[in-house]
Amino acid sequence: MQASHYQPPLEDFRFVQQYCLQAEKEWCRLSAHQGLDQETADRVLEAAGRFCADVLAPLNGPADLQGCRLEHGRVLTPDGFAKAYADFVEAGWPALACDPSVGGQGLPQLLDTALHEMLASANHGWAMYPGILHGAYACLHAHGDDYIRRTYLPPIVSGRWLATMCLTEPQAGSDLGLLRTQALPEQDGSYRLHGNKIFISGGDQDMSENIVHLVLARLPDAPAGTRGLSLFLAPRLIPQEQGLVPNTIYCDGIEKKMGIKGSATCTMRFEAAQAWLLGKPHQGLAAMFVMMNSARLHVGLQGLGHAEAAWQLARTYAHERHQMRVQPRPATAKGAADPIAHHPAMQRILADLRVWTEGMRVMAAWTAHQLDLAQSLPEGDEQAQALSLASLLTPVVKSFFTERGFALASDALQVFGGYGYVHEYRIEQTLRDVRIAMIYEGTNQIQALDLLQRKIAAVGPEALQPLLQTWRGEADACLSAMADCPWGKALRQWSDHLHEVTTHLCSRAQHDTQVLAWCAEDYLRLVGTVCMAFAWARAGRVSRLQADTSLCERKVASADYFFDHGLLDARYYLSRIEATAASTVPMQKLV
Amino acid sequence: MQASHYQPPLEDFRFVQQYCLQAEKEWCRLSAHQGLDQETADRVLEAAGRFCADVLAPLNGPADLQGCRLEHGRVLTPDGFAKAYADFVEAGWPALACDPSVGGQGLPQLLDTALHEMLASANHGWAMYPGILHGAYACLHAHGDDYIRRTYLPPIVSGRWLATMCLTEPQAGSDLGLLRTQALPEQDGSYRLHGNKIFISGGDQDMSENIVHLVLARLPDAPAGTRGLSLFLAPRLIPQEQGLVPNTIYCDGIEKKMGIKGSATCTMRFEAAQAWLLGKPHQGLAAMFVMMNSARLHVGLQGLGHAEAAWQLARTYAHERHQMRVQPRPATAKGAADPIAHHPAMQRILADLRVWTEGMRVMAAWTAHQLDLAQSLPEGDEQAQALSLASLLTPVVKSFFTERGFALASDALQVFGGYGYVHEYRIEQTLRDVRIAMIYEGTNQIQALDLLQRKIAAVGPEALQPLLQTWRGEADACLSAMADCPWGKALRQWSDHLHEVTTHLCSRAQHDTQVLAWCAEDYLRLVGTVCMAFAWARAGRVSRLQADTSLCERKVASADYFFDHGLLDARYYLSRIEATAASTVPMQKLV
Repeated sequence: MQASHYQPPLEDFRFVQQYCLQAEKEWCRLSAHQGLDQETADRVLEAAGRFCADVLAPLNGPADLQGCRLEHGRVLTPDGFAKAYADFVEAGWPALACDPSVGGQGLPQLLDTALHEMLASANHGWAMYPGILHGAYACLHAHGDDYIRRTYLPPIVSGRWLATMCLTEPQAGSDLGLLRTQALPEQDGSYRLHGNKIFISGGDQDMSENIVHLVLARLPDAPAGTRGLSLFLAPRLIPQEQGLVPNTIYCDGIEKKMGIKGSATCTMRFEAAQAWLLGKPHQGLAAMFVMMNSARLHVGLQGLGHAEAAWQLARTYAHERHQMRVQPRPATAKGAADPIAHHPAMQRILADLRVWTEGMRVMAAWTAHQLDLAQSLPEGDEQAQALSLASLLTPVVKSFFTERGFALASDALQVFGGYGYVHEYRIEQTLRDVRIAMIYEGTNQIQALDLLQRKIAAVGPEALQPLLQTWRGEADACLSAMADCPWGKALRQWSDHLHEVTTHLCSRAQHDTQVLAWCAEDYLRLVGTVCMAFAWARAGRVSRLQADTSLCERKVASADYFFDHGLLDARYYLSRIEATAASTVPMQKLV
Repeated sequence: MQASHYQPPLEDFRFVQQYCLQAEKEWCRLSAHQGLDQETADRVLEAAGRFCADVLAPLNGPADLQGCRLEHGRVLTPDGFAKAYADFVEAGWPALACDPSVGGQGLPQLLDTALHEMLASANHGWAMYPGILHGAYACLHAHGDDYIRRTYLPPIVSGRWLATMCLTEPQAGSDLGLLRTQALPEQDGSYRLHGNKIFISGGDQDMSENIVHLVLARLPDAPAGTRGLSLFLAPRLIPQEQGLVPNTIYCDGIEKKMGIKGSATCTMRFEAAQAWLLGKPHQGLAAMFVMMNSARLHVGLQGLGHAEAAWQLARTYAHERHQMRVQPRPATAKGAADPIAHHPAMQRILADLRVWTEGMRVMAAWTAHQLDLAQSLPEGDEQAQALSLASLLTPVVKSFFTERGFALASDALQVFGGYGYVHEYRIEQTLRDVRIAMIYEGTNQIQALDLLQRKIAAVGPEALQPLLQTWRGEADACLSAMADCPWGKALRQWSDHLHEVTTHLCSRAQHDTQVLAWCAEDYLRLVGTVCMAFAWARAGRVSRLQADTSLCERKVASADYFFDHGLLDARYYLSRIEATAASTVPMQKLV
């Protein structure tokens, strides 16, 4: 077994929470988190980090080689996965952010986000199994009746039972309106499910006592399309008085995938499987979206987690590996060659890895904190604003982090030269594993449409206000702390640009039905890049005020690097949006 | 076994040769190719395409699953590889571009380039084995003495024996100056090699009767660094009067890699292995570069070949897969959903795949034709210009095609949604296979330094003249064919920009020793993008003159698409160069 080199980025979590978000002060004003202080948060994440580094990370490489097996209709996960999960449950991690009233620890999403980033860094394949526990909890909490909540919430909150999300069918991926699985009502109020689902992560496994499937299906009187979908709960084993009784749910196969080979991606058959309705008939998609939003945030965190892991691997290797001499060579240099970390091409990659990864971490925490505010503040303007921000940021975090995570992992691989392409250096696994995150829980293309069409244009350009206000607020803070602060000026300028382009696109969409679809991806990338500018303006500004000199200097240099280099991407995306909106090329000739 | 869907792009090869390069006219003025006409060229490529589609492509997926094995010290390649190679040899493909005086067919590099693109599209892993045959031929032809040429050239030209390039050692990858393998002279004029080499593609295999290793090593009196390297020929089996006698060369292991799993990447041990000097002592690197340049071009073609394969897979899938309805929906549309090829996000990806792939094909052919001109024209200005162009374009083709090929394969994977991540849809293999091309034969970072530092700045900004003249010539041709032609205007403008930035960087380099290293990668990307603009200006202009309406319309639309969208990348790269040259961020704090 390979030794783990993963180091949980605890110092950076603390920096983000304490300095960028002033989390302790924020928790004070939220009744749900009033007792929480930074020291407790640190201790929680330290323990979580130890679990990820010591238990999960060492299983990551071997699981990639071993993969999952399907034997006699049951999935066998890689060696060590079940034991690691038992430890995870025993330590209470599944319950971290669940409500204390159902046995959870009631900690904020802000901490849960850090936990999920570390899980992805350490072992993405393993992390898939408990990955949607919190989403399932939120969904049952919101939509289960008394019987469901009483029966299913406690074992889900504790992690004793795991959950799956059963959406995709062979003919229905991005288009859930094409789903065919049928739900026939029984006299006792339950239903029978008939149909096949594919790409079900953890559809079967040998890690938890029971598996609770949340399944989208159609009632007999359902209208066509997405308005005819209802959400059902169908357990692998049905809890009855005499104990757990097998349901008629079968795993027919597991996929041979590019990566996350430790995660069993199952083809599931529901053969008159007993199920219970969650929420109202034909309103399954809305009920499912409670889970989907939580899952999308977690997928974004996978992009971040892999970027962090890639950065750690590349940094270590770049300081150990000696090739060629740097020109001009420092007088103190020795030997026939210098560490490749001293060569400009590698420094550029390492700086990108640092600045994008740490910036995404600020943005992830900021998004998670909006969820905490939305959940815990009393109803009112601030709570509504937090909800709007979380809703806007969810597709951005999902898409932008995963696309960037993939690109950064590929950059990091390049640092290793030929070694990057072989398994034992582990970076090639990172690149394979992270690639799925651009696809599942709604492809990045779907996220872009969600942001621009559904969340912005359908409302009007004013839908962008919560973001603009936050960005401009930070720009003002920078400029009042330091006149002519280049970060503040750039952030203000890009807030204005984004306001303009949004207004323009919304007005164009009145008479050009396709312009939004054409521009959506670059628009999302542009929003993501300006969010990064916000993150670095914030991180840079608060660093100037801190006593920790080396951390502070590094953060200020990182902010400068982002505004000198990273922000050039914004100009590029804007130029692509403008060119796309203006182009008259007959695209149908090219496809 | 999976059916092959690969379609050799024969129509496009013909378009490029006949219209973009007017190859037949060009061949007429080269004594070496005077008898060749377009019809013959078409027939050669048609036969090569049939071999790639019918023999190689069906082995590609299964070989990825099976991989290579090392048993009792010998490598076993995947099922079918040896038989396919025997067919390849029998058909005479190895000899395609070799000199008729040694048994070759004497066809131009222009056709060999098309062959190698198709080999990479069909089965990159398999294509690795004969991949450097032509390079080895060129190297022995240039540097072998009579005995070597007589003994080794015929079986290499025929393909009966295969060749390897043995450079890398564990401590010496990008920095060949750190190589340690020793060569000790024997009384009979031969040498004994002692050392270990890694990452040797086809270091052992079961496909050819013999394997000829070309090995960089040090003579006892060798100075340190790259000036102490000599090139040796060391066969696996030594041809002697009594037949082939085993040498002391051993394969100690094969790598577990991310992709090209059909290609055995070997760790080789030379244990007093008998070897013969090629060229002069201590001048091995120069001799090896004959091979390296040829190999670098082939690696670029792998980027192109994978882009073509990815495009074919994505295009087919996008027209078959139905998800969601297009808005506004044409009156003729039927069913619950439309082909995803009708959705803007997918059309954008498909258009990018077409335009970058076809543009790279023009550029590849243009580069190969410079090699033909350099080799076959009488000495003089035009021949020197062709040699300069080939020398400048080699690192650009290697780096730009492989980086773009990887990005395009990832875009194509996205078209498949979740299916893209599973093996049976084959696109994930394309993405894994193409990734190596950014690394081997000199990483893309090394190529960028080769272009900007060694080939341009070391000479002065005038080194760019051959490219500028060609680009400006095409711009003039566009503008005289059509006043205000936007392609011609943009190409002329970007030629000027590139001249300016090159002059600026060369002058900065006088007092700033690191500026070239910082800017090299974006500079190479900028040159590559302007080369693409040249390719599309040429392809667009000549298409306007052709009678084939549908091809012509598609090419003109593609050129418009490139100049509307693709060329935005040039502005981005230029902005990155300018920002890098101006930035004062203390990078050492960030690494």
